[in-house]
Amino acid sequence: MSSEPKNAAEIDVENGLAGIRGFEYSGVSAGLKASGGKDVALVRNVGPEFTAAAVFTTNRFAAAPVEWSREVVRDGRVDVVVLNSGGANACTGTEGFRNTHRTAEEVASLTDAAAGDVLVCSTGLIGEQLPMDLLLPGLRDAAGSLGEGPEHDDAAASAIMTTDTVSKKASVTLQTEQGPVRIGGIAKGAGMLAPGLATMLVVLATDASMSADNLDAALRSATERSFDRADSDGCMSTNDTVALLASGASGAVPEQEEFTDALTRVCVSLALQLIGDAEGASHDIHVTTAGAASEAQALEVSRAVARSNLFKCAIFGNDPNWGRILSEVGTTSVDFDSSDVNVSINGVMVCRGGAIGEDRSLVDLAADRTVDVVIDLGAGSESGTIWTNDLTHDYVEENSAYSS
Amino acid sequence: MSSEPKNAAEIDVENGLAGIRGFEYSGVSAGLKASGGKDVALVRNVGPEFTAAAVFTTNRFAAAPVEWSREVVRDGRVDVVVLNSGGANACTGTEGFRNTHRTAEEVASLTDAAAGDVLVCSTGLIGEQLPMDLLLPGLRDAAGSLGEGPEHDDAAASAIMTTDTVSKKASVTLQTEQGPVRIGGIAKGAGMLAPGLATMLVVLATDASMSADNLDAALRSATERSFDRADSDGCMSTNDTVALLASGASGAVPEQEEFTDALTRVCVSLALQLIGDAEGASHDIHVTTAGAASEAQALEVSRAVARSNLFKCAIFGNDPNWGRILSEVGTTSVDFDSSDVNVSINGVMVCRGGAIGEDRSLVDLAADRTVDVVIDLGAGSESGTIWTNDLTHDYVEENSAYSS
Repeated sequence: MSSEPKNAAEIDVENGLAGIRGFEYSGVSAGLKASGGKDVALVRNVGPEFTAAAVFTTNRFAAAPVEWSREVVRDGRVDVVVLNSGGANACTGTEGFRNTHRTAEEVASLTDAAAGDVLVCSTGLIGEQLPMDLLLPGLRDAAGSLGEGPEHDDAAASAIMTTDTVSKKASVTLQTEQGPVRIGGIAKGAGMLAPGLATMLVVLATDASMSADNLDAALRSATERSFDRADSDGCMSTNDTVALLASGASGAVPEQEEFTDALTRVCVSLALQLIGDAEGASHDIHVTTAGAASEAQALEVSRAVARSNLFKCAIFGNDPNWGRILSEVGTTSVDFDSSDVNVSINGVMVCRGGAIGEDRSLVDLAADRTVDVVIDLGAGSESGTIWTNDLTHDYVEENSAYSS
Repeated sequence: MSSEPKNAAEIDVENGLAGIRGFEYSGVSAGLKASGGKDVALVRNVGPEFTAAAVFTTNRFAAAPVEWSREVVRDGRVDVVVLNSGGANACTGTEGFRNTHRTAEEVASLTDAAAGDVLVCSTGLIGEQLPMDLLLPGLRDAAGSLGEGPEHDDAAASAIMTTDTVSKKASVTLQTEQGPVRIGGIAKGAGMLAPGLATMLVVLATDASMSADNLDAALRSATERSFDRADSDGCMSTNDTVALLASGASGAVPEQEEFTDALTRVCVSLALQLIGDAEGASHDIHVTTAGAASEAQALEVSRAVARSNLFKCAIFGNDPNWGRILSEVGTTSVDFDSSDVNVSINGVMVCRGGAIGEDRSLVDLAADRTVDVVIDLGAGSESGTIWTNDLTHDYVEENSAYSS
């Protein structure tokens, strides 16, 4: 990442919320998941400050919890985030919205908050009503289980998983003049990952003291450089939510730019964990476009390649089929001359000047899970990377059987 | 099709070029395909007229034969079309262009044509040079085998196949005041099917007497309503070519509108045959958007749904997962209010008013290969259909192993 400071502290992927002062969290099983696994999580800010920001899916069929939460965060204050897996509560009409409202009211009464300060997130199948007879007792159980530390962190991170095979956590310590600040969070999402966010729920927290406006600016910058660049299958969800809550419990007020950088690093780690656990994937693919006239053009080219099913099947087959890269580049309208374009796969320049380069058999795709594709347009000095994954039998299997 | 006349003659899918007066054709094996199957085809107009039109891929990495053929058709005359499978001759630089030029010269000398009247089409792997030592003798063999009738028709249609499992042919008879006119053609293409054309080679012929301008207008109208609405995997090829040659041998001059309608019906038949044989597909899916403010908006919505991997995997699993339809509709910017949208799958309205409709278990997807999805936006009276197919294990298998 170009935005990564040289001496940045290491990202901690063992702890998400654990270690961030001023927060309690929990994860319990309410019976929403057929598997019996944990499916309800709470993240509670205990202050002394309660500032917050959030970004949401741009899908016009936004789920009921997204409609609700957009209003909640408008005043820059969130006290509690309640999350459930086992049902998206999307395309569920007025009954769905009533269920979200009731969920917020119940959580508010359990945590001494106002319902208007309770953010609600749901994930799972679209087009089914939530079983409120199971969810409401689950909320009481989750409120009774609130606490801090690694065990509670693990429980919350597990409770938001759907087809994820592992939970996702990341955090980092930022040194300030008033002492250390901690920033971290938990994430879920393994399919339907696309820009404008993904089927992705992310709860980020910090013990820094930050105004809601500064949180909002930092969050928008961080998501643009992280989750928005992860594109697993080009599909946009109805439920995506990334929330950021600040407790001020550290008493420290970080510089805006340093805070944004640290937050971005946490978000990049979570985004790469999401891609690394994408449904059925056997390769993580980093598609970098360099030599572009602008960063936006670089990202447009990288995204076009990252969305090619033919390219993604070839990578699954460990086949460095660069023709499928060029044919996607050729569908874009960005600045380049076709005879200037070079393509390297894992360091081997298989295409030079828009034509045949090194022997494709020199590329070894079987050795490593990560595949590096670099497209040099020869049209400028800007670059940008999109992270994606291959298209596999397991993706087809998981997504042909998900709702049944 | 709304453009289909009430009393239109039946489409004949047994004959493509056979029965069209003024043409000779052939298909032979030159050894380009590892399988030893036929891989070189010729279609020769023997007149008395030689008008022609063609449309090509809009990919900026257009293959050498496309660059060549664009120039050939510019004057509205084509005498011969030469086609090869077993190699796309795309991204092959100046050597690739020389090979296309040499191919045209060889065919010209074999058929008493000018090289500038020889259209060249290639299909196969991108980024490899054609084995000219095999192709040139193949051209001589193909020229020696030219003839007319069903056997030659079959040979030509087979020689252009790549991963196609069956050859594609369609033709129709149009009655005019000066007697019957025949219009028909052959097509190939099974993956990389997308708008702006697909990896698709189509040679259409007619014994009507038509000016090059009228052929061009008819061809553009017909392809817009047929091949451009077939979208198998969203990938655009470097080699797509649809050519239309007229011999005038019938002596009849059809009305422009009637000719265009008949040509469109032939192209729709070929497009549906392409989708029906798309790589690994187990379902043909017709995605119709109705109640749209314009036809363009209807097609935009249908295309967004047709490109959703999640939706296409669900159909493969016989799962009427309508949430994956709405979530794609919600990514578009066309006119609709989310509470007005209905979705039917095979006649069952599973989504009503943007929320839960009939029980999804009433939809039977296993009974039939064809799946009809109708999205009613409730925002107007226009409609449009995109034809696609499901995303299956066999698609992944074929496309992860194609070049190796």
